[in-house]
Amino acid sequence: MAMAQQRNGSADAAAAASAEPGWSAAAPRLRALALELIAERLAASADELIALAGGETHLREARLSSELRRTTAQLQLFAGLLRDGEVLEATIDRPDPNWPSGPRPDLRSVLVGLGPVLVFAGGNFPFAFSVAGGDTASALAAGCPVLVKVHPGHPRLSDRTAALVSDALAEAGAPAGTFALIHGEAEGRAVLADPRVAAGAFTGSHAGGRALYELACLREVPIPFYAEMGSLNPVFVTREALTWRREEIVAGYVASYTLDAGQFCTKPGFLVVPEEMGVEEAVAACIREMPAQPLLNSATGDRYQDALWSLRDQSAVTTVVAGDSDREAPTPSLLAISARSLLANAGTVLTECFGPTSVVVGYRDDDELLALAGAFGGQLTATVHAERGEEVAVQLLERLAAIAGRVLWNDWPTGVAVSYAMQHGGPYPATTSPLHTSVGTAAIRRFQRPVAYQGIPDPLLPPPLQEANPWGLPRRVDGRCQRLVMQGEPSQEARR
Amino acid sequence: MAMAQQRNGSADAAAAASAEPGWSAAAPRLRALALELIAERLAASADELIALAGGETHLREARLSSELRRTTAQLQLFAGLLRDGEVLEATIDRPDPNWPSGPRPDLRSVLVGLGPVLVFAGGNFPFAFSVAGGDTASALAAGCPVLVKVHPGHPRLSDRTAALVSDALAEAGAPAGTFALIHGEAEGRAVLADPRVAAGAFTGSHAGGRALYELACLREVPIPFYAEMGSLNPVFVTREALTWRREEIVAGYVASYTLDAGQFCTKPGFLVVPEEMGVEEAVAACIREMPAQPLLNSATGDRYQDALWSLRDQSAVTTVVAGDSDREAPTPSLLAISARSLLANAGTVLTECFGPTSVVVGYRDDDELLALAGAFGGQLTATVHAERGEEVAVQLLERLAAIAGRVLWNDWPTGVAVSYAMQHGGPYPATTSPLHTSVGTAAIRRFQRPVAYQGIPDPLLPPPLQEANPWGLPRRVDGRCQRLVMQGEPSQEARR
Repeated sequence: MAMAQQRNGSADAAAAASAEPGWSAAAPRLRALALELIAERLAASADELIALAGGETHLREARLSSELRRTTAQLQLFAGLLRDGEVLEATIDRPDPNWPSGPRPDLRSVLVGLGPVLVFAGGNFPFAFSVAGGDTASALAAGCPVLVKVHPGHPRLSDRTAALVSDALAEAGAPAGTFALIHGEAEGRAVLADPRVAAGAFTGSHAGGRALYELACLREVPIPFYAEMGSLNPVFVTREALTWRREEIVAGYVASYTLDAGQFCTKPGFLVVPEEMGVEEAVAACIREMPAQPLLNSATGDRYQDALWSLRDQSAVTTVVAGDSDREAPTPSLLAISARSLLANAGTVLTECFGPTSVVVGYRDDDELLALAGAFGGQLTATVHAERGEEVAVQLLERLAAIAGRVLWNDWPTGVAVSYAMQHGGPYPATTSPLHTSVGTAAIRRFQRPVAYQGIPDPLLPPPLQEANPWGLPRRVDGRCQRLVMQGEPSQEARR
Repeated sequence: MAMAQQRNGSADAAAAASAEPGWSAAAPRLRALALELIAERLAASADELIALAGGETHLREARLSSELRRTTAQLQLFAGLLRDGEVLEATIDRPDPNWPSGPRPDLRSVLVGLGPVLVFAGGNFPFAFSVAGGDTASALAAGCPVLVKVHPGHPRLSDRTAALVSDALAEAGAPAGTFALIHGEAEGRAVLADPRVAAGAFTGSHAGGRALYELACLREVPIPFYAEMGSLNPVFVTREALTWRREEIVAGYVASYTLDAGQFCTKPGFLVVPEEMGVEEAVAACIREMPAQPLLNSATGDRYQDALWSLRDQSAVTTVVAGDSDREAPTPSLLAISARSLLANAGTVLTECFGPTSVVVGYRDDDELLALAGAFGGQLTATVHAERGEEVAVQLLERLAAIAGRVLWNDWPTGVAVSYAMQHGGPYPATTSPLHTSVGTAAIRRFQRPVAYQGIPDPLLPPPLQEANPWGLPRRVDGRCQRLVMQGEPSQEARR
């Protein structure tokens, strides 16, 4: 299997297209094995990878170590999904001349890979949202060859990770062309326009994501483009909550927004609190003595200072703590604004500032608190800190569930579990596709399409749909889910 | 509940947005009841509706009668889905400090309605793809208010159907604003641009669908737009199949492409057969004596004649039977082309001609047959007529599954079952969203988005996610599906 780092993207797209039929048709357990082998290779090279990542991103070793564990566990989680097989959604409708909407033929459907997927790696998670991250894992699991457009912030780590991925895929018997790297912005755009590419995924800024999304939509043959473009992650604190848990809330806020220099798409960018309760001063006291933390790279530093100053320059915004303006490693900043000013200037104030800055918003009463909840656009997360039994909390939760993919209670949004119920997505501008998540098991759905077979003789059906069910998949038959009896398990045929 | 036929679309969008929280949060059994009441009202007014439809569309009474039965059965099918409740995909991850990818909080997710949906009604199915058709049924089932942009071909039927829908929704207690009609092309586009509209669905021509799709994508806040834009539905016949079943194939083809004057998006537009076996002559003999059938309306007639002549004017295309050119009620036409000419002129020949015309393509050998299979773009359907054991059939099926949403064997593509395994969709240009179907139970997925709740106290969770499971939904807990025991059923807790 060629790694093709130096080839051009068109050749990589061609190789991916020729790999696609074999990879998509492979038994799920073969793709599972491939994902497990990738996880093994990454884990076996952990020290080397973490050192490379540390050198290129300046992230802490402990953080990188846990991020790599998360990344390998994520690959294993998708492998487990494939071994179970339910994600193929094999569905069988037997012929029924009396079906109410009209006579029904023998109809069987299964989800297959969409085709080659172009992944634009994120910069702030050099493992979990990069070469072997969640987009790659879920696309490979779906049966799609993957082209990864390398993030310029960690090219050497990307090359090394790709070599490990390619070796693992080759060992698992994946077709040549199942995986390749793309270097360079222009090359990334060119590959996105390639007719052989069937979908795109992106993690990064709004400007970058929107531009690529429009390219994907306006192709002669448009393709789905899943862009996760960041979020303001507002946190709403009731007067009761602040009264009873002031220290805990202040400490949690500071820890969450300054963690790893605030370089998370789930960083709480706005803390909405009762004014005149001294939250700004308490937060300021916590951060004034905090040491500088290095940013990912100087480009991130430049964008951070630009975004910070565009907020500080607004007359409605007060600078409570002006962190030092070192572009490589600033200390945290804290801004403040009143609810009235924010509501009057939402268009200019509600912008993401990627780095160690957050804005405290002071409200006078619950009407202002609820009005603020309605002022934010689509978000990855929104959080409520409240005491049980507060009526305003009920209203807040309802409003926030309408704009956010994930709603939290007395917790902080940084930290995204990779599990079944995770929704890491949300209405625009958080993402371009509110139906989907980029983290968790449902991320695979972005890259699957259904194919229905009508009246096909059994031996010509793909294995998931053959009567004998050779892959032992759970299947929905006439609307009800059926699982084969597994060794050691009691017989069961579940109605689903 | 106001029907709002004469109000402007902006007011309707505002009413839909205010109806949305209540409709989306309603218990699934309430939405099920509403769908059942709509079905009842339509069935009770069948004679009146069929007469109105016949007058406006010129479709046969028997066809309209079965289409209306299909439409009411479709509403009842979605009602059944809601009563079962699995479509909400309630998912619960319990806290797990030892979860491999990192400590997991209490995380629970459920699918909710995307928001108000704008449905652009189709003209050729005045019931099943119009005011109370599949898009409306699936969007209402998902919890979305619906605005239907009326098809100009059957305005009186649309108004009457809408009145019945509105009455049924009011009787079921749906919030005012849950449903309204939009009249006029410009008004439809204006409502599509309205920020309160969350998704669009469309059935019609490629030009119309693509233009609306681009409007939806390029909004300041883009929204999903599901356009089903027709298909060529090629049918590939092997030499063996034609040798053994010539009469059956010819008769089936003629019946399928002339059914209701060929006004189906699943009409077989191309029949690929061995040349020199006289298929054209046999088909011609069948259709020469066929009576004229009325088209839906004169606009359809104009477009049909334009499309037919743009094919007939191509030097590569032979006119085998020139149906009369009556724009209201033409007789069937038959065109022919050789495989070589088609492969050389695919860009101009492979266009949809909506009406009673089809093209016979003659191939010399299996290489040409397979090359033709690779020449077609995305399709709703593709069909193989072959004998068992033919190697070329296996290759055909593989190629066609890559371009079509539904692949048929020794059958004809007209006739779309409304069931669990149906995929009425396909890669572009058949649709704008290859992941989705517009017919069958999975159509609901187009209008649902996940919301995850992290650490929310039980009484503040939406009912689908509360510990006591007050709505009795099947739920996935820690990755395994659980169903409550129903009265009279044996106890079961299914592993899924």
